[in-house]
Amino acid sequence: MDLSRIGEFGFIERVRGWFPESRIGDDAAVIDGLAVTTDVLLEGVHFRLDWSSPQDAGFKAVSVNVSDLAATAARPRWILLGLGAPPSASEDVLRGIYEGVREACDEYGCELVGGDTMRNDALLLAVTAIGALDGTPLTRAGALSGDVLAVTGPLGLAACGFELLRDGVTPDGPDAGACVAAHRRPCARVAEGIALRDAGAHACMDLSDGLFSDVRRIAERSAVGIEIDADAIPIAPEVARVAGSRAFELATARGEDYELLVALASVGDELLPIGRVVDEGLWLVRDGSRLPLPEGGWDHFRT
Amino acid sequence: MDLSRIGEFGFIERVRGWFPESRIGDDAAVIDGLAVTTDVLLEGVHFRLDWSSPQDAGFKAVSVNVSDLAATAARPRWILLGLGAPPSASEDVLRGIYEGVREACDEYGCELVGGDTMRNDALLLAVTAIGALDGTPLTRAGALSGDVLAVTGPLGLAACGFELLRDGVTPDGPDAGACVAAHRRPCARVAEGIALRDAGAHACMDLSDGLFSDVRRIAERSAVGIEIDADAIPIAPEVARVAGSRAFELATARGEDYELLVALASVGDELLPIGRVVDEGLWLVRDGSRLPLPEGGWDHFRT
Repeated sequence: MDLSRIGEFGFIERVRGWFPESRIGDDAAVIDGLAVTTDVLLEGVHFRLDWSSPQDAGFKAVSVNVSDLAATAARPRWILLGLGAPPSASEDVLRGIYEGVREACDEYGCELVGGDTMRNDALLLAVTAIGALDGTPLTRAGALSGDVLAVTGPLGLAACGFELLRDGVTPDGPDAGACVAAHRRPCARVAEGIALRDAGAHACMDLSDGLFSDVRRIAERSAVGIEIDADAIPIAPEVARVAGSRAFELATARGEDYELLVALASVGDELLPIGRVVDEGLWLVRDGSRLPLPEGGWDHFRT
Repeated sequence: MDLSRIGEFGFIERVRGWFPESRIGDDAAVIDGLAVTTDVLLEGVHFRLDWSSPQDAGFKAVSVNVSDLAATAARPRWILLGLGAPPSASEDVLRGIYEGVREACDEYGCELVGGDTMRNDALLLAVTAIGALDGTPLTRAGALSGDVLAVTGPLGLAACGFELLRDGVTPDGPDAGACVAAHRRPCARVAEGIALRDAGAHACMDLSDGLFSDVRRIAERSAVGIEIDADAIPIAPEVARVAGSRAFELATARGEDYELLVALASVGDELLPIGRVVDEGLWLVRDGSRLPLPEGGWDHFRT
């Protein structure tokens, strides 16, 4: 069997089977009071230099790693960058990437401390982010039946921006601009993750592969069910205006939102509730009917 | 200007210029009592599956990272692996890679704690290794004029093995076998690094790009000169027998030795002295003459 049939999540399950004693499976690994994570960004997969500047690519590579720290309630401290590039890569592009890395380090209060360089046909940014845990880490495990499920912000902006860029029909105006900006420069919810931990949240992850896919991950790791209210899903208003009837799909089945998905006993005004934790099953409640939660979400090896 | 003209080391100098306050430049970065490093291995650049098994590739990816920890005198603790693969990658190859990662983790006493997966045309292993520093870290800076320069073992095996595999003329016998094995499964000198630190070594790095290239790095970082005795360079006897007149080149200008290069006040029997630290210049002493040290060594963007 090959990866296109196993799929990304089947593959991760296999790795967990090959390393049954390992703690693999959360957004970041916890080691001696630190959280550490690695995410690799590839030109052509995660960014394209005709859609994003080199600065955007460098910023995004740090952001998506810091987002994993945020989901663990860690405070970003250190970044390592392994950069792969073809020999034809220009100094301007390379400098731009590092400028973006610096902008993100300044934004998140962390420091570039090391890295590696190697030849690769496409630009490749292999980032490792390390953060300090000033308390118990949040993990994907720990959601309890009866918990509220919530997100930290509206969804679908980056997916909508990606489609606008892909289709080459970017309309003018602030709505399209917000969508494209969310694709180019996602923001990690660092303060939110720490506040959620301090408020006693039970489980947390960042939304990187799409709401309906990520909800499955938190349900699996917490050994619970989840019920989502279709009408409560916070589709970003910009997406609703730009994408019309496709907005629901963009907000639930695409990814790169980098908002936090959290399960906790009760929510205040700062969170957007989208459903609840139940004993078992994955459900979407729409017009009073409880339907199986649709499949969907980004899979690197199937998509 | 593009990378093929800037070269790998020119590029690293530029990164240091873009991040002047950063500590980039040692084998591993030191953060709060830990050492952390990242090295990315690519199919076709660092390994080929017609020359090495998937297990070898997984083992090597961990080893070359642990070698950076060894050069810092850190004890390996945790590994993260970002794996890139094409959708056509078979489960057998993937399982083999993780088996090799496990073998290396068992060898070095560390644990796989996290990672990432993504699509890439070639297999890609982006490893992060984190180790504990039970004392002062060794760095490339600190070599003093008058120090002895030494290595922890004979050189040239992996480079010779690479050429045997590349030329498809692998002769039978233990000499060729030792060379090929050194290319496929390099060993990191963890105990040696810690012992050198405890013995008061002044500067250390691992030999990954070739002796003559790596000597320049330690001289630059320590702001000293280095003088190497040509006759003292410990060409591995297997390499001398297999490669004849090319053995010197393989032992000095290729890389992947993963022995430690160290500067210290005096050496005991466990080290192989190759020269000394001087006030300035890079020199090779041969037949009583002092010549400029030849250029040479692996450069990802020029080679």
